Amino acid sequence: MLSFDCDYVAGAHSEVLKKLVETNMKPLSGYGEDIYCKSAREKIKKACNCENADVYFLVGGTQANLAIISSLLDSYEGVISADTGHVNGHEAGAIEHTGHKVIALPNHEGKISAEEIEKYIKTFYENDSHSHMVFPGMVYISYPTEYGTLYSKNELEKISAVCKKYEIPFFIDGARLGYGLMSKESDVTLCDIAKLYDVFYIGGTKVGALCGEAVVFTKNNAPKNFVTRIKQHGALLAKGRLLGVQFDALFSNNLYFEISKHAIQMAEKLKSVLTGKGYQFFLESPTNQQFVILENSKMEELRKNISFCFWEKYDETRSVVRFATSWSTAEADIEALKTFL
Amino acid sequence: MLSFDCDYVAGAHSEVLKKLVETNMKPLSGYGEDIYCKSAREKIKKACNCENADVYFLVGGTQANLAIISSLLDSYEGVISADTGHVNGHEAGAIEHTGHKVIALPNHEGKISAEEIEKYIKTFYENDSHSHMVFPGMVYISYPTEYGTLYSKNELEKISAVCKKYEIPFFIDGARLGYGLMSKESDVTLCDIAKLYDVFYIGGTKVGALCGEAVVFTKNNAPKNFVTRIKQHGALLAKGRLLGVQFDALFSNNLYFEISKHAIQMAEKLKSVLTGKGYQFFLESPTNQQFVILENSKMEELRKNISFCFWEKYDETRSVVRFATSWSTAEADIEALKTFL
Amino acid sequence: MLSFDCDYVAGAHSEVLKKLVETNMKPLSGYGEDIYCKSAREKIKKACNCENADVYFLVGGTQANLAIISSLLDSYEGVISADTGHVNGHEAGAIEHTGHKVIALPNHEGKISAEEIEKYIKTFYENDSHSHMVFPGMVYISYPTEYGTLYSKNELEKISAVCKKYEIPFFIDGARLGYGLMSKESDVTLCDIAKLYDVFYIGGTKVGALCGEAVVFTKNNAPKNFVTRIKQHGALLAKGRLLGVQFDALFSNNLYFEISKHAIQMAEKLKSVLTGKGYQFFLESPTNQQFVILENSKMEELRKNISFCFWEKYDETRSVVRFATSWSTAEADIEALKTFL
Amino acid sequence: MLSFDCDYVAGAHSEVLKKLVETNMKPLSGYGEDIYCKSAREKIKKACNCENADVYFLVGGTQANLAIISSLLDSYEGVISADTGHVNGHEAGAIEHTGHKVIALPNHEGKISAEEIEKYIKTFYENDSHSHMVFPGMVYISYPTEYGTLYSKNELEKISAVCKKYEIPFFIDGARLGYGLMSKESDVTLCDIAKLYDVFYIGGTKVGALCGEAVVFTKNNAPKNFVTRIKQHGALLAKGRLLGVQFDALFSNNLYFEISKHAIQMAEKLKSVLTGKGYQFFLESPTNQQFVILENSKMEELRKNISFCFWEKYDETRSVVRFATSWSTAEADIEALKTFL
Repeated sequence: MLSFDCDYVAGAHSEVLKKLVETNMKPLSGYGEDIYCKSAREKIKKACNCENADVYFLVGGTQANLAIISSLLDSYEGVISADTGHVNGHEAGAIEHTGHKVIALPNHEGKISAEEIEKYIKTFYENDSHSHMVFPGMVYISYPTEYGTLYSKNELEKISAVCKKYEIPFFIDGARLGYGLMSKESDVTLCDIAKLYDVFYIGGTKVGALCGEAVVFTKNNAPKNFVTRIKQHGALLAKGRLLGVQFDALFSNNLYFEISKHAIQMAEKLKSVLTGKGYQFFLESPTNQQFVILENSKMEELRKNISFCFWEKYDETRSVVRFATSWSTAEADIEALKTFL
Repeated sequence: MLSFDCDYVAGAHSEVLKKLVETNMKPLSGYGEDIYCKSAREKIKKACNCENADVYFLVGGTQANLAIISSLLDSYEGVISADTGHVNGHEAGAIEHTGHKVIALPNHEGKISAEEIEKYIKTFYENDSHSHMVFPGMVYISYPTEYGTLYSKNELEKISAVCKKYEIPFFIDGARLGYGLMSKESDVTLCDIAKLYDVFYIGGTKVGALCGEAVVFTKNNAPKNFVTRIKQHGALLAKGRLLGVQFDALFSNNLYFEISKHAIQMAEKLKSVLTGKGYQFFLESPTNQQFVILENSKMEELRKNISFCFWEKYDETRSVVRFATSWSTAEADIEALKTFL
Repeated sequence: MLSFDCDYVAGAHSEVLKKLVETNMKPLSGYGEDIYCKSAREKIKKACNCENADVYFLVGGTQANLAIISSLLDSYEGVISADTGHVNGHEAGAIEHTGHKVIALPNHEGKISAEEIEKYIKTFYENDSHSHMVFPGMVYISYPTEYGTLYSKNELEKISAVCKKYEIPFFIDGARLGYGLMSKESDVTLCDIAKLYDVFYIGGTKVGALCGEAVVFTKNNAPKNFVTRIKQHGALLAKGRLLGVQFDALFSNNLYFEISKHAIQMAEKLKSVLTGKGYQFFLESPTNQQFVILENSKMEELRKNISFCFWEKYDETRSVVRFATSWSTAEADIEALKTFL
Repeated sequence: MLSFDCDYVAGAHSEVLKKLVETNMKPLSGYGEDIYCKSAREKIKKACNCENADVYFLVGGTQANLAIISSLLDSYEGVISADTGHVNGHEAGAIEHTGHKVIALPNHEGKISAEEIEKYIKTFYENDSHSHMVFPGMVYISYPTEYGTLYSKNELEKISAVCKKYEIPFFIDGARLGYGLMSKESDVTLCDIAKLYDVFYIGGTKVGALCGEAVVFTKNNAPKNFVTRIKQHGALLAKGRLLGVQFDALFSNNLYFEISKHAIQMAEKLKSVLTGKGYQFFLESPTNQQFVILENSKMEELRKNISFCFWEKYDETRSVVRFATSWSTAEADIEALKTFL
């Protein structure tokens, strides 16, 4: 069975695993205060070229989203997101569970625009009874989006300007950040991200780690006592080393970027194979997730040899499915895929 | 200044106030255990022809909505509502504050249909990853809706059937229930409501009381220890008599229905006056709220003598405004209105 | 049956009721923006001699407690209270339901001291792992306490100083504030209260109103968008007039203080009657609640003619019971009581 | 520096790590549905001799505690715990953050008794106004306790009987379960635990794993849709394999018990060394945590070569400190310790 169903099918990258093994028996402090966490923090700050960054390690994406969003919002505020945003649809209501509304705006291929965000906020404040409504308190986007698409630098700058104007934080869910930054179509760097956003996270789970996301508050703007907040959510690992060691490896020798680039190369190969075979794409994605429209009968046939992800119904007889590559995808997998398509 | 801006401009109906005065110095038990609460409960059960009703009195609509919804949902469930539903837009995120998502479906003149609800639920359960999503755990509608429109008995029965099929409760926000039931276009009675719904409330605040909503669980299905839940929300009045006495008066001598009917008659007069003057309606409302499209200049002019409610922008030069009648609207008000239109 | 079981057995004071009747049909703005709310706010600010006060009206004590405490605490903070504090024991976990721990310190006749509070806070910050603990974020006391006892001005000043030192707000639950201030043993005035506290409320429910507590933030320190927060808790009355009119009456002609004084006079008479009959007091209370130790058999006998409140078991054969007076207690009640003791 | 400060200073046991390495590149399903999670579940059920067990893997102890407790309690219920219970003091208010009170009873060397629990519950229900209070909805104990002490089988049976009588679940925090079961003073087995409790967890983080706790609902009584609840708390790992593989290794070849036994042997050696050197114990602990009273000056001196944990002030000149052993403690460490004491 060929695995293209998601970007978390394998364990950790060999360099990451090696470091876990090497450091395994060293006695280390708990709760993120060990030397590897400290080293990883410094490396990330350097990679972001952001001296004022506060860096924290959390286990997963939903956890990072809920810890960040609930810490930055006041009780009467909600977070603006595309309706396709991960926080809106696929986190089992984790944001609402912390007491906050996800204010969902209609997406365009997974994206929302600065104009739409500003229009929403303006209309809100013009409404006489807005004190009876949820205040827009934050903007959340995913980079890349849930559909694999990317915001251009210009689009991000415009959203960032709206956030500044209304004094609300701009937050990026970077569960797949590496796959966005390494896309040929990306015109932003990690340093740009650190400049444009108030807070973002660098996904490890989907990019080479067993688990872990590195949360970066870019302006020494981590919420007061953020460690206590994390603890309160049951999200503080006793053996913080597990995250520190992994991110230390990922941010050594450009590893995070190299393995992300590999995944993109595999995605391009995949794309060209699919195109060659005459498959129809649902949308144009420049990152590691590719969405294809299949006849339902074809879908069932392919499933015998390939695992991929059903995404949504397209019409009565066709479905949208997702093929994902990752750091662990081998060229041989793509070659093998050809024979089954 | 003529007051048509809402249905809570006056205090209590004279009969209600009289009873508050008469009973004022009687020493009574607290927390809803007094004889008037008990009497009001019995009268409401009788008016609903529903022996299995559990009746509780809460101070206001948002409070009733959040207490009911949060008590009936499991932590991973959300409530389905029209996007125009009061719980979705105008309660400052009270539902999300209790930890639950409002699952907003697009409205049609304030309504959602059984077909749309069922489609949503079916699609949810067909989704392979629905265990990562918010479960649809309840259906909420307003009767009449926020646009003054009504569901027919047939429409309600169909929604009720969907709820039964998927074993989720069907809940009506009856903040303006009287104005719905007394509409000429209504084909349901209070007894029908009690049969079709698992829980609803009979609005007092907007229909003759100083405050208060009577929550009715129709199948002895009040959540366990509901009084403790109410207390936990800070919603249990020490002097429960304030609510009991008022509802006892409202459900004596058919008062609740008589004063609701009066409001409807005033709305019809209002409608005919507006029609006569050539005003354009935003939609056809058979209840006490009337929505009219005004040129913005006209709107400003009218505001000098009449208070009404700006509802939403219609286009660049026109607005939708609301005129509301209530139990306290006098015929003289309508007559006076004529001279200003 | 003679009623001494609590201080909320009757409706509203006649002056309060009269004003409700007089203003009943006036069309007024909703949600606390009417002229009576405004007038009441001004009168309260004047009575407190506190120009910087932000005043809000809420329906009841638990509601006031939870709205204030949850708005002023950060998510990782708890509120310090005597273990006998109302928020700790008798509000069905309302504070915890908003996500915050009540940090309960052992009481002395219902009180906690500045020394004990400071010791707790100091020990907390000295603890190496305090970032894994709930931060002390606020001090809550009741005046008078749940046992009817009073803090002296000196005691309050010392607690206030500790709060200032650790930069946490000092909050008083004044559900029975009038009965405290009018006690002969009280050496504080309403103006002192406004100076010493960051926030407090003036109880109406137990002192002459049908319902209502006036929350006073003394330093223009109301939490941002407090109205929206109140709305979110389902605690914003559409007919805010109900509270405004009542507090306007209570703060006209010194009414609040006069009727509180009456309750204290009745309590003194009650005390002297009980003493005369040889009853044993559980503790010395200078306010409207009197705690007496009764043989269980005697308790059952008295219950035939007098309603009072069982408080707690004293030993195997005796119980502590509470007799409460209020603004509505008549001298005749005390006289009648004599014959049954 | 010799490390005795806690039981999470090292990474994973070599067998656990080996299995992580071996399985690393296998493509596996996410979210706990992989073959290792399944295998680990079966091995745990077998070790518990409990066919009706529902087993889930969570990342850490606080997370397990909050997910279990908040899922099993109704909104108006709290959890009974010793005041020294981890959930009461050292989880940053995680339980309260989910909306529930921790009902803290005074501990005896970390323990509470069946009699005390029953007395609390009985008194609660006898209280006339218990509907205004937090209902006792669950009993939580730690095995071993935070002071390293153990409940006897008889003590556990008696608490279990109280829970059955009042129909509330009995829950054990087993963060150090192995160290309890392998103590010479323990008279219970894992099978006994599975019989006596409704839910417990088997700590991995402190017993050989990098992270992870195995939650066991013993009577197919996992809360409905528990995976969705876990997701909602941000506690569902995409790479569930990380937990499955580790527990699969821990429950192969009796590893969990063998390494726990080793820690206990080291603790015994430690104890005898400390005794030999004339150190005074704070209490008698039969498990891997040993509490010693030190002169403050001595404490500072020892700290130069040994890391241990300050526990609490004993008196003005002395402190209680904790020495912990674990699966990773080597005999050489104990030998080395001797020379520094």
